[in-house]
Amino acid sequence: MHTEIIAIGSELLTPYRQDTNSLWLTEKLLSLGIPVIRKTVVGDSRVDIRSAFEEALERAELVIGIGGLGPTQDDITREVVADLLQRPLEENAEILARIEERFRARGRRMPEVNKRQALVPRGAVALDNDNGTAPGLWLEETNKVVLLLPGPPQELMPMFEQHCLGPLRERAPRNILQTRVFKVVGMPESEVEEKIAPLYSRYSNPATTILASPGEVQIHLQASGERRERVEHLLNELGDQMEALLGDNIFSRGPETLEQVVGMYLLMRGATLAVAESCTGGLIARRLTDVPGSSRYFLGGVICYSNAVKEKLAGAPPKLLKQKGPVSEEVTAALARGIRRHARARLGLAVTCIAGPEGGLPLKPVGTTFIALADDHREHVVKYRFLGDRERVRWQASQAALDFVRRRLMK
Amino acid sequence: MHTEIIAIGSELLTPYRQDTNSLWLTEKLLSLGIPVIRKTVVGDSRVDIRSAFEEALERAELVIGIGGLGPTQDDITREVVADLLQRPLEENAEILARIEERFRARGRRMPEVNKRQALVPRGAVALDNDNGTAPGLWLEETNKVVLLLPGPPQELMPMFEQHCLGPLRERAPRNILQTRVFKVVGMPESEVEEKIAPLYSRYSNPATTILASPGEVQIHLQASGERRERVEHLLNELGDQMEALLGDNIFSRGPETLEQVVGMYLLMRGATLAVAESCTGGLIARRLTDVPGSSRYFLGGVICYSNAVKEKLAGAPPKLLKQKGPVSEEVTAALARGIRRHARARLGLAVTCIAGPEGGLPLKPVGTTFIALADDHREHVVKYRFLGDRERVRWQASQAALDFVRRRLMK
Repeated sequence: MHTEIIAIGSELLTPYRQDTNSLWLTEKLLSLGIPVIRKTVVGDSRVDIRSAFEEALERAELVIGIGGLGPTQDDITREVVADLLQRPLEENAEILARIEERFRARGRRMPEVNKRQALVPRGAVALDNDNGTAPGLWLEETNKVVLLLPGPPQELMPMFEQHCLGPLRERAPRNILQTRVFKVVGMPESEVEEKIAPLYSRYSNPATTILASPGEVQIHLQASGERRERVEHLLNELGDQMEALLGDNIFSRGPETLEQVVGMYLLMRGATLAVAESCTGGLIARRLTDVPGSSRYFLGGVICYSNAVKEKLAGAPPKLLKQKGPVSEEVTAALARGIRRHARARLGLAVTCIAGPEGGLPLKPVGTTFIALADDHREHVVKYRFLGDRERVRWQASQAALDFVRRRLMK
Repeated sequence: MHTEIIAIGSELLTPYRQDTNSLWLTEKLLSLGIPVIRKTVVGDSRVDIRSAFEEALERAELVIGIGGLGPTQDDITREVVADLLQRPLEENAEILARIEERFRARGRRMPEVNKRQALVPRGAVALDNDNGTAPGLWLEETNKVVLLLPGPPQELMPMFEQHCLGPLRERAPRNILQTRVFKVVGMPESEVEEKIAPLYSRYSNPATTILASPGEVQIHLQASGERRERVEHLLNELGDQMEALLGDNIFSRGPETLEQVVGMYLLMRGATLAVAESCTGGLIARRLTDVPGSSRYFLGGVICYSNAVKEKLAGAPPKLLKQKGPVSEEVTAALARGIRRHARARLGLAVTCIAGPEGGLPLKPVGTTFIALADDHREHVVKYRFLGDRERVRWQASQAALDFVRRRLMK
């Protein structure tokens, strides 16, 4: 069931906005075994929208249009597609009533322009929109489906899940598609590749994709087949061997981020954590507190850019700072001890680094990073040298620091 | 000069990767007065790549293909486009030598597969790649230009700037396109719209686009005309009136972010800043330290999730915490005072809020936020109620806090 996605909106052709709905839709469609073969972005132009749908319908069995269903003059997807499929637009009393009701509930009268949203191409099924005024539309042509969805993600997502996933699953090919993901930290891409290439290159099904970003490598396996058991068997066979090769470097087998995994370990161990960050400047704390409920294990921390803050708030001895410099093994260890004591946490984590672009030294070039973790016995310190610009160095330092906590808690 | 961009690569049709090159290219093209009318993403499939170029060439005068120029079997853009334009591929000795030299400089032999990258369609101009092996290609057809660029941004960007911007500027229409941007903080989108709609709706040139994201509204003006002076006059005429209406709510007229603007004001005033964050958990510090050189004015701060940290590191009196609760006007003011004193900063900024999803109270529902700023005289506190999920609340709180500092320093 070949599928194309057409995102409609002139703002998506500017440097400022991007179609992100298609990523979400692609994931949902893949879960049904339906691959996307083309994505197109066109502006609010009659001629461009028409040609995009016309061409897509020649190639694909499912064409999903996103956007252009609003009430204003710019929003012409409904009209253009109805015209292309030669279906007259008919006012749907039920939809009109629902839109009017939506406005009434907010104490407002429905503006005249919203009437257009109650127009439905003959034979189309309107899809309820619980989060906005624009209904979606499901149109059947010979052996083809055209689906029109509203552009705002908070309207599109629930509509697709409630009204489209089920019917599409029934039409989806017998061919089952299943994916598995391994997220790896602490190994560069080249090392991961070297380790697993001899293994995965023996398999064409599952297919293996390696995606690298700073400080993290993701391995995606995708298997297909006619029977679910067979597909799962294929995934297990390759997946188990991969797990054996990568071991503890795998921090997640699902959607969990590294900060979520660290949080789960802290909860599981009944431990608390506090951080002292210099170069990462709050990035580690921000990532830890992105997780709802993180206040149960994350007590807080200190961003110690200046030496005064390092001394006063994170307990780094002034003499040590002078002797060893703020980015050093000894000061980082002292910061981990200090923040642990000050915050009364079970674990104290500290990171110092030279993030750049300035501040590099002959023996401590830009990218030099120290990470220390203190518990009630002692502190462990590791040293790294990360490459890349300021943002990249900071991100990699935060990955390595969170991973340091994870590995400590796994033991 | 109508332009289409075709991004090539099967990974761009997965849920995990997105074409971002086209955003950058769109900005460069707009600066030449060249609008993009369609963007297409296709996988590494001969048939799909061919039809994408074929259709684009029927509509556009400039077609830019991105990706698929690498050395492996998947990379077929070069071959498919040469075939479509009926031009034989010829090995270019100069390019081959350059690729071989690139490998030699790294102490490696050129793998046989890289030879393909030295193939050039007859009549095409090869564009040097200083950051990779794949040269770009510039092909002229009757009244049309086809441009093939490598996919990695660090290769594409310098190549386009060095070898394409100039020649395209010469071919660009006499019509000049210029943009102006106003970034607004402290006003919701509806209020901005209400204020400026009566003004901008009187102008079709410049065209006005309003883009809203949490805590920030951007207004983009785009004017066109045959003479630069005229275009600038149009932008000034509308822009000046808009500035008068929006006043200090405009924090930037260019690419600067709010944290950069705050940093510039701090530098200009010779002031230093320290922060105490609870709910934002390091987000404000992270944003401030994203800016290179921020150590000149940002001293550090405290992430005070637990009450112990609020007391010990940010000087909040235990009695006050008990009486008023950690999210209160009084405690936030005490935190601003405390962090200012502890970090020896000129300004102390504190934020407390209930970010959710849990923790809401009858009188302090989720989204309730206090922001305090302390100087050597006293502290000012403001209260907000932000709507949305955890991430949205936190982001809006960080925007409002940074804006609070900006407005204080503007005086």
